[in-house]
Amino acid sequence: MTTSGGQVDRSTLEDLAAASRILVDQGVFDAAGHVSMRHPHHRERFLMSRSLAPEMVQADDIMEFDLDCNAVDPRGRNGFIERYLHGEIYRARPDVMAVAHSHSPSVIAFGLTDAPMRAMYHNAAFLAEGVPVFDIREQFGLTDIVISTAAKGAALAQVLADKSVALLRAHGMVAVGPSLPVAVFRAIFTVTSAAIQHQALALGGPLAALDAEEGRLADVVNVQTVGRSWDLWKKRVMR
Amino acid sequence: MTTSGGQVDRSTLEDLAAASRILVDQGVFDAAGHVSMRHPHHRERFLMSRSLAPEMVQADDIMEFDLDCNAVDPRGRNGFIERYLHGEIYRARPDVMAVAHSHSPSVIAFGLTDAPMRAMYHNAAFLAEGVPVFDIREQFGLTDIVISTAAKGAALAQVLADKSVALLRAHGMVAVGPSLPVAVFRAIFTVTSAAIQHQALALGGPLAALDAEEGRLADVVNVQTVGRSWDLWKKRVMR
Amino acid sequence: MTTSGGQVDRSTLEDLAAASRILVDQGVFDAAGHVSMRHPHHRERFLMSRSLAPEMVQADDIMEFDLDCNAVDPRGRNGFIERYLHGEIYRARPDVMAVAHSHSPSVIAFGLTDAPMRAMYHNAAFLAEGVPVFDIREQFGLTDIVISTAAKGAALAQVLADKSVALLRAHGMVAVGPSLPVAVFRAIFTVTSAAIQHQALALGGPLAALDAEEGRLADVVNVQTVGRSWDLWKKRVMR
Amino acid sequence: MTTSGGQVDRSTLEDLAAASRILVDQGVFDAAGHVSMRHPHHRERFLMSRSLAPEMVQADDIMEFDLDCNAVDPRGRNGFIERYLHGEIYRARPDVMAVAHSHSPSVIAFGLTDAPMRAMYHNAAFLAEGVPVFDIREQFGLTDIVISTAAKGAALAQVLADKSVALLRAHGMVAVGPSLPVAVFRAIFTVTSAAIQHQALALGGPLAALDAEEGRLADVVNVQTVGRSWDLWKKRVMR
Repeated sequence: MTTSGGQVDRSTLEDLAAASRILVDQGVFDAAGHVSMRHPHHRERFLMSRSLAPEMVQADDIMEFDLDCNAVDPRGRNGFIERYLHGEIYRARPDVMAVAHSHSPSVIAFGLTDAPMRAMYHNAAFLAEGVPVFDIREQFGLTDIVISTAAKGAALAQVLADKSVALLRAHGMVAVGPSLPVAVFRAIFTVTSAAIQHQALALGGPLAALDAEEGRLADVVNVQTVGRSWDLWKKRVMR
Repeated sequence: MTTSGGQVDRSTLEDLAAASRILVDQGVFDAAGHVSMRHPHHRERFLMSRSLAPEMVQADDIMEFDLDCNAVDPRGRNGFIERYLHGEIYRARPDVMAVAHSHSPSVIAFGLTDAPMRAMYHNAAFLAEGVPVFDIREQFGLTDIVISTAAKGAALAQVLADKSVALLRAHGMVAVGPSLPVAVFRAIFTVTSAAIQHQALALGGPLAALDAEEGRLADVVNVQTVGRSWDLWKKRVMR
Repeated sequence: MTTSGGQVDRSTLEDLAAASRILVDQGVFDAAGHVSMRHPHHRERFLMSRSLAPEMVQADDIMEFDLDCNAVDPRGRNGFIERYLHGEIYRARPDVMAVAHSHSPSVIAFGLTDAPMRAMYHNAAFLAEGVPVFDIREQFGLTDIVISTAAKGAALAQVLADKSVALLRAHGMVAVGPSLPVAVFRAIFTVTSAAIQHQALALGGPLAALDAEEGRLADVVNVQTVGRSWDLWKKRVMR
Repeated sequence: MTTSGGQVDRSTLEDLAAASRILVDQGVFDAAGHVSMRHPHHRERFLMSRSLAPEMVQADDIMEFDLDCNAVDPRGRNGFIERYLHGEIYRARPDVMAVAHSHSPSVIAFGLTDAPMRAMYHNAAFLAEGVPVFDIREQFGLTDIVISTAAKGAALAQVLADKSVALLRAHGMVAVGPSLPVAVFRAIFTVTSAAIQHQALALGGPLAALDAEEGRLADVVNVQTVGRSWDLWKKRVMR
C-alpha cells in the first residue's frame, strides 16, 4: 500500500482547487482539463482532483498519488485516466512543482501543423525557449489519444524535455512551472499567445517575436510578479 | 389518432429540456435550435419541445410525436416546423436515440465550401468518419431552406447515412448519438472542432487530424466519459 | 411647431426601449447604436431614444420626431445627431417601419473592401437581394463621417434603395424592416452572417451562399417566425 | 522629499479607479494594464494605482508620483514598475492628461509585423494620424521588455511623438488623451479597430480606411460625445 506524503494544509488544497476553477474562468479549460501540484512535503507524491469537471473541483476533491499514479487513500474516488501525464512529468522533471493539461482550441491548431509556436509577447516569454509537439503515433501507433499509461506519460515527458510547454497533437497542451501560480500563468498566456500568433501570421511577413534571450529575461519578471495576477484570478473564483 | 408511447419519467423530460438550455449555454444554439430524443418506451415515438426559443424550454414544453411527426397530445401547443428532420432520422437510423439541430456559425462556413470538416482532436473523434453536406437544392431546387416536410427530412437522413454529423448547406448542422448526452456532446465539440480547423487551415500545410481509426478508438472514450461533462453542463443550466 | 402623431401605448415605448437593449445584449450595439420605429398612428412621425448609450434606454427616453427630425416635445432632451439617417429612410421608404444603425466590427470590414456581403444562411436571407455600400466621400468629400444632416441621410437612403441592409464605409450599417422585431432580427443576423462569411471566404473556393430566390423564400419564414426570437430577446433584457 | 500637487477630489480618484475597471470590463485590460492621469492641480505630478490587478483598483489605491516617478506619499504601497512609461509621456507631452497601457492581443499582432494599423472607422479616428511602433531592441538591445526606467519611458515617448497611440513590439500599446475619458475611449477603440483590420485585411484588396483629414474631423466628434460612452462604462463598473 502506498503511504502518504503527509498532511497537507487546507489552504494548499483550496489553492489547487481554485487553480482548476481559475483555468475555467480564464478560458483555458472547458468541461475537461486538470491541474496538479507536487506534494509540498514529499517529492514522490502529487496532489490532483478526482475525475470531475474542473469548474466543480473543491478542496475535498483533491486526491494524493504516488509517481506510479496509485492513489494513497482513494475512499471510493476515481482519479483521471490521464493522471499518468502528471506523474511522469514529476518523475522526469525535479524542477516542476505543478502541471496543467488542457484542450485549448487556439493551441491545438499549432499542434496539427508545422507552424511552430513562438512567444508573441513578454507574458508568454516562457515560449521563447521553444514549444515541442508530442505526436502519440510516433511511438504508439493508432491509439485513442489518451495519456492512459505510464509509458505514454513518460514519452510525453521526454518530448517536453526541459521546456515549459508542450503541445499534444490532436489533443491539447501541457504547461509546467516551479509553482502552482506559475504553471497556471503559463497555461493562460500560452492560450493568449497562440491567439495573437494566429492574427500576426495572417498579417504576413516576418514576426518580431521574442527571441530566446528576451524570453529568458522577461520570464524572470513574470515569475516575480505572478502573485498580482494570481490574487485576482483567485478572488474571481472565490466569489 | 396517434397513440402515446407511454408515460415518461419527469426526470427524462427535465433532461431533454436541460439539453436544450445546455446547447444555448455552450454556444451551440442561439435563439433557434432544437434537440429531441427517442421515446424511452416506444421506438416509433420521439420527444421534442414545442416551438420555443431553446433557452426557454422547460419540461412542460416537451411534446410527443410519432415518426410521421404528428403530435400525440398537442393541447394547443405547436411543434417546430423542422421536426421532420428529427422524425426521419429516427426512422432511418435505429441506433440513434437523440438528435440536435443548430445554426452554428463556425460550422455553417464548412457547409458553404468544398473544404471537408475533419476531426481536429479527440473530443471531436466522431467527425473522423467523415462529415457529409446536405444541399437541399440537389433534390428540391430553390426552396426556403427549411426541412419542413417528411420528404426533405428523409433526404437529409439519406445524406447523413451512418455518420454522426451532417452539415446543411446555408443552414446549419445535425448531430446524432446513441444517447441524449452523447448527441449533446457531439453538437458541442463539432462547433469547437470547426473553430480549431479554421485556425489550423489558416496556418497552412498538411493537417495532422485524427485518422479514421484514431477517431473510432477515441470516440469510445468520449462515450464512456460523457457523464462527467454532462453533469457539469446540466448543473450550469439548473442554477 | 411640430404637432404630435398622437399618444403612443406604453407597451410600444417599452418595446422600442427593449429593442435598444436587445441589440446590446445580442452584441450588435456597443456604447453606441440606435434603433427607431415609425409612429404607429402617423406615417410622418417616428420614435427614437434621446442621445444615450443604448444599454441604458428606457421607455421614458423615447422622443417623437417629424421626418425633418425636429423633436415634437423635447422637454430638454437631446436627440442623436444621426437621427437624420432614420428620418430620411422613413421618408424614402414607405414600407419601412423600423430602422437600426450600428457599428458592428464584422460588418464594418465588408464596408471597407470590395468583397460583397452575401447571405450565408437562411436567417440572413434578406441579404441575398444584395448589400449596397454607402461611401460618404462620393457626394460629400472629406467629412467627419457622421450622418448629421438631412442631405446626408437622404443620400444614404438613396443608396439603400429597396434593400434591407446597407453598409456605411468606415462607419457601420443600417438595417430596416416592416416591423420593429424584423428590423432587430435583421441587424442581429447581418452581424452573424458577416462572421460566417469571414470564415467561409478564408476556407477558399466558391461560396454556396443563398441565391436571390432562396433568400426571398427563406425571408418569408423569418418574418413569420420572428416572434419566437423576439420573445426570448425581450425576456432576456427585461430580467 | 517630493511634495504633493495638492488634495484631489474623491470623485477624481473614483473616476481614475473606475477607468481601470472599465478597461477590464471592456476587454482592453486582462490581469494587467494600468491607466493614469495628470494631477489636476500640478502639471508635474500624476496619479496612478499602486501595483494591483486593474479589476481590483479602488480610489484608495491611487498614488501620486512626480515626473521622475517618485511616490509622494507611498505609505507602504508599491507603484507599478512601468510607471516610467506614464511619467515620461507626461513630461514629453504637455497636452496629454491621461495615459493607458495594455497588452491587448489584437493590437499586439500589429506590433509584431510590418502591417501598419489604420483607422477602420470613425470611432478609431485618432489612428488616422498614424500608429508608430516602439521596438525596445533598437535602443536597449535584448531586455526583459519592461519599461522599467526613465530612459526607456523617454524612448517610448519619443516614438509616440505627437500621436495618440503607439504600439510596443512584443508587449502592448499605449493610448493617450486630453482627458481621462478620451484616453479610455481611445484604448477601447484601438482594440476594436485592430479587430476590424484583421478581418478587413483577410478580405483582400485595398482598404477604404479613414484618411488623415477624415480622421481629424471625426475625432472632434468623438471628443465632443465621449461623455455618453463614459457614463455607460462607468455605470457598468459601479454596479
